Amino acid sequence: MPIMPITPKPIRRTAFFLSDRTGITVEMLGHSLLSQFENIPLDEITLPYIDSKAKATSAVRTINERYIADEARPLVFSTLVNPEIRLIINSADALHLDCFSIFIAPLEAELGARSSENMGRSHRVSDPTGYWKRINAINYALEHDDGLSQKNWNRADVTLVGASRTGKTPTCLYLALQYGIYAANYPLIPEDFQREELPAQIRNIRSKLFGFTIHPERLHEIRSERKPESVYASLKNCEYEVQSAEKLMRRAGIPYLDATSKSIEELATAVLHEAKLERKIY
Amino acid sequence: MPIMPITPKPIRRTAFFLSDRTGITVEMLGHSLLSQFENIPLDEITLPYIDSKAKATSAVRTINERYIADEARPLVFSTLVNPEIRLIINSADALHLDCFSIFIAPLEAELGARSSENMGRSHRVSDPTGYWKRINAINYALEHDDGLSQKNWNRADVTLVGASRTGKTPTCLYLALQYGIYAANYPLIPEDFQREELPAQIRNIRSKLFGFTIHPERLHEIRSERKPESVYASLKNCEYEVQSAEKLMRRAGIPYLDATSKSIEELATAVLHEAKLERKIY
Repeated sequence: MPIMPITPKPIRRTAFFLSDRTGITVEMLGHSLLSQFENIPLDEITLPYIDSKAKATSAVRTINERYIADEARPLVFSTLVNPEIRLIINSADALHLDCFSIFIAPLEAELGARSSENMGRSHRVSDPTGYWKRINAINYALEHDDGLSQKNWNRADVTLVGASRTGKTPTCLYLALQYGIYAANYPLIPEDFQREELPAQIRNIRSKLFGFTIHPERLHEIRSERKPESVYASLKNCEYEVQSAEKLMRRAGIPYLDATSKSIEELATAVLHEAKLERKIY
Repeated sequence: MPIMPITPKPIRRTAFFLSDRTGITVEMLGHSLLSQFENIPLDEITLPYIDSKAKATSAVRTINERYIADEARPLVFSTLVNPEIRLIINSADALHLDCFSIFIAPLEAELGARSSENMGRSHRVSDPTGYWKRINAINYALEHDDGLSQKNWNRADVTLVGASRTGKTPTCLYLALQYGIYAANYPLIPEDFQREELPAQIRNIRSKLFGFTIHPERLHEIRSERKPESVYASLKNCEYEVQSAEKLMRRAGIPYLDATSKSIEELATAVLHEAKLERKIY
């Protein structure tokens, strides 16, 4: 009788992202590090607001349960300010990568200062004006999306221009949410190409304009999702619009970038840096 | 002649956030760590897209110039995958906190695997479907903001309800941008309070509803920014609307949270976790 080969069960790991606040920073860092190990199957679980000993103890229980279920030690990434809470998490059966401890010691040595937490002050100072800056920036982006609104165009930190569906709207929202930047956007449409002139509303804010262009094939794909089989979405029309928009932007001296294979955060950070905008919030 | 006391010049430090991509993760991590040293005056500079030796060399020059200008060693936080580029940055006269090196070694040991970069593969796999998920989620949020649109309400992963100006719109946009979640929002207005019933459009999606409430004084402040001296913004009306909205949500069995002193990302992550939503993108 032949011996049956035993196929080893593939080890599935669990990564936990723990924070005493929202966990957004630690999950972005952890996820980006783990993407370097693409062959390891991973479950990722964020445990936010671990801000008491009771919640820390409950988190340890959750982590240890996953150890048993996975038959492999979980990975724990944490940004926990409170040392007592960090100590409790350390007791979990896991590889604990404690971002706070790892970085605070060298920073204290370099700066010749104790961190707030190590000075016994556990409160976090929040920025009360930050909330308003962000809300106002979002409202501004919504009110000045796609050429809406007749007023306050000169209040924008930047106004994105380009053919429709080149990624202007999500980029404006990202600039508002992440950086508190007042970002408007104005579409360039066939009427503008025929006139060979910028729309009147944005002609006098030329120094604040920043353009998006895109490969016509990609624009054709994007527009076809929304309006399949339309003239608007046809490759021929997309080629015409992209060429005409680029010509208009070049003549007007508007810097522009190619949005074709960029993510929204890549577009937003590119605009931030290339248009030399200053972020208003962290 | 009295000896003039020499007032020491306060040391101003510069912190650099270096990345081979957008730099969003490393600047969030670095900024959060540095907020623990609130008495140290700091300039924060992000240098994104350091993805070639030439750019790394130029970054080193920028860092060293700040050392001379500040008369104090800069702090450098980096998430750089390429080891040659990390080596160049190491040559800067700075405290270099290299997030990649610090974490990858323990992860390799724990996982018994080499990271992609250390295997000689330097490409990053991007998620082509992630772009679409995010764009579609943003479009959905924009089309289903403030009770707009007559259709597709049951497509939402979550629909936020509450009196107007309680933070529903920015939270929906954040859920879409950060997590790819389809988030709609529907205002509860005086007509609903008089009828003591939910609006018809959202009555049959009750299990997807999540409510926001707020302290009446805070709502009064927020509304007064937009419509000062109006009945709508008056404290009395805000008290009435908040009480009525809470009563309506309780009767309908809709879970709700107090948005009063929360930031947008705190609101979004609270909804994500309390409504047990699954993030669609990283």
